[in-house]
Amino acid sequence: MPEPIRKTTDVEVRYVETDQMGVVHHSVYLVWFELARTGLCEESGHHYADIEKLGFNLVVTGTKTRHLAAAVYGDTVQVDCWLEGLSSRVLRFGYRVRKGDRELASGATEHVWVDRSSGRPCRTPDVLRVPFERLAGKERTACI
Amino acid sequence: MPEPIRKTTDVEVRYVETDQMGVVHHSVYLVWFELARTGLCEESGHHYADIEKLGFNLVVTGTKTRHLAAAVYGDTVQVDCWLEGLSSRVLRFGYRVRKGDRELASGATEHVWVDRSSGRPCRTPDVLRVPFERLAGKERTACI
Amino acid sequence: MPEPIRKTTDVEVRYVETDQMGVVHHSVYLVWFELARTGLCEESGHHYADIEKLGFNLVVTGTKTRHLAAAVYGDTVQVDCWLEGLSSRVLRFGYRVRKGDRELASGATEHVWVDRSSGRPCRTPDVLRVPFERLAGKERTACI
Amino acid sequence: MPEPIRKTTDVEVRYVETDQMGVVHHSVYLVWFELARTGLCEESGHHYADIEKLGFNLVVTGTKTRHLAAAVYGDTVQVDCWLEGLSSRVLRFGYRVRKGDRELASGATEHVWVDRSSGRPCRTPDVLRVPFERLAGKERTACI
Repeated sequence: MPEPIRKTTDVEVRYVETDQMGVVHHSVYLVWFELARTGLCEESGHHYADIEKLGFNLVVTGTKTRHLAAAVYGDTVQVDCWLEGLSSRVLRFGYRVRKGDRELASGATEHVWVDRSSGRPCRTPDVLRVPFERLAGKERTACI
Repeated sequence: MPEPIRKTTDVEVRYVETDQMGVVHHSVYLVWFELARTGLCEESGHHYADIEKLGFNLVVTGTKTRHLAAAVYGDTVQVDCWLEGLSSRVLRFGYRVRKGDRELASGATEHVWVDRSSGRPCRTPDVLRVPFERLAGKERTACI
Repeated sequence: MPEPIRKTTDVEVRYVETDQMGVVHHSVYLVWFELARTGLCEESGHHYADIEKLGFNLVVTGTKTRHLAAAVYGDTVQVDCWLEGLSSRVLRFGYRVRKGDRELASGATEHVWVDRSSGRPCRTPDVLRVPFERLAGKERTACI
Repeated sequence: MPEPIRKTTDVEVRYVETDQMGVVHHSVYLVWFELARTGLCEESGHHYADIEKLGFNLVVTGTKTRHLAAAVYGDTVQVDCWLEGLSSRVLRFGYRVRKGDRELASGATEHVWVDRSSGRPCRTPDVLRVPFERLAGKERTACI
């Protein structure tokens, strides 16, 4: 079975992202996840900014982070992102934050599609179904 | 001449607001200013959230901060806010951040009214003119 | 068995905490959790700022959030925090974000104690063991 | 007279940096300035992280921003930074935020050197004097 597409985004630690412990604050990882998710979505051929213009939001319903080691100011880290689950209504993205080979953190976020006009959850917009299945590494059976 | 109304907002320093210097990051003061500005606007009888619902934004066109001493985690600081300038199109708010009697920082922000439907600058919305003049401490001459 | 102590912290939504979806960004909930955790720790008789001065950090090793409904600018929300797990080395805090009776989000964070001088994980500092067990609602057996 | 060295840093707008007005929040510009300042300092041959390890902080004493047009999610902007003033104790950096040829914002920050061991302002550390004068574009007169 094909693997999901992995997209890696380099992130330079910002001074403001540190706290008085001298390391990057744990809440910042959700921000880096989002930046990496933007990068992955772009691989679908649709920048997330354009997806919103199509009339849909990807609303966050849950997040999870696990922290193994700290990132510090001066670091540039790599954030891997992939679409690890995709149903007709729910998406789950996975993340890994590394400094080279050393894993600093991992995590996941869950999302639902929301129709911006109604404000209600909806199925994967038609125009995005194939591109997102491709991100998720789902086999496409040819129509005969 | 009447003084502008001063509104003081207590702010508890958040851990995330510190940086690795061990003090509150300078960008946070703009966030505190905004919180205090929300508090002052409420004194006009219109929460800023409601002002946006009326169809207007108060868009920031400039900011200034001056830092005398650091706020640290564990502090609760006072942020004074007042409307120090008001013309038909431009507002200027002043701020002082104190820990009791000790001034930590001061600053100012400038804003213009923007009509949300057109996205263009506009005059003070009619419904807000009198309330904001009162905030600014402007004398109201009676109409004869 | 005694229940853990619950501490509720009121949080006024800040404009900067919203994003272009018009709601509070999901990463902000971790910041609110932290603010509520500070409030709960204070109930132990030791402000977290003082705990760091004693030579210890409570380092975050994991976080989890679940989002049911959005908070918006203009809201003041209540964040409940309690110590839902406590072993000799690991603490787990639970959180609920409410607007009155309506639950908006929930979550948890896991932490280990770290000795600031060595930078290594350590057991609950002696001076904090009893206060934190009290927070966790653990029965204290009298010494005979 | 030689010009100060200008360093340009590309910044991709993060979703979290937007607010409910649909544009990047004004406080974010100070964060971008800082990122660009880090990039400029690196041109001196000393990453700012290393400068702190040498025992010095560059503490912010004032900031100024001017906003002409909004940055939005989906944009990548350019932040130019240069050292526009340098005396024995005070540094002033200038900034311009552009989207290609279109200026979005400008600003300045003022800083003093602080000796980390004493916590007090100090003169430019000897090891940094020449590199920072070079950044500022100051002629070096040969000692006779």
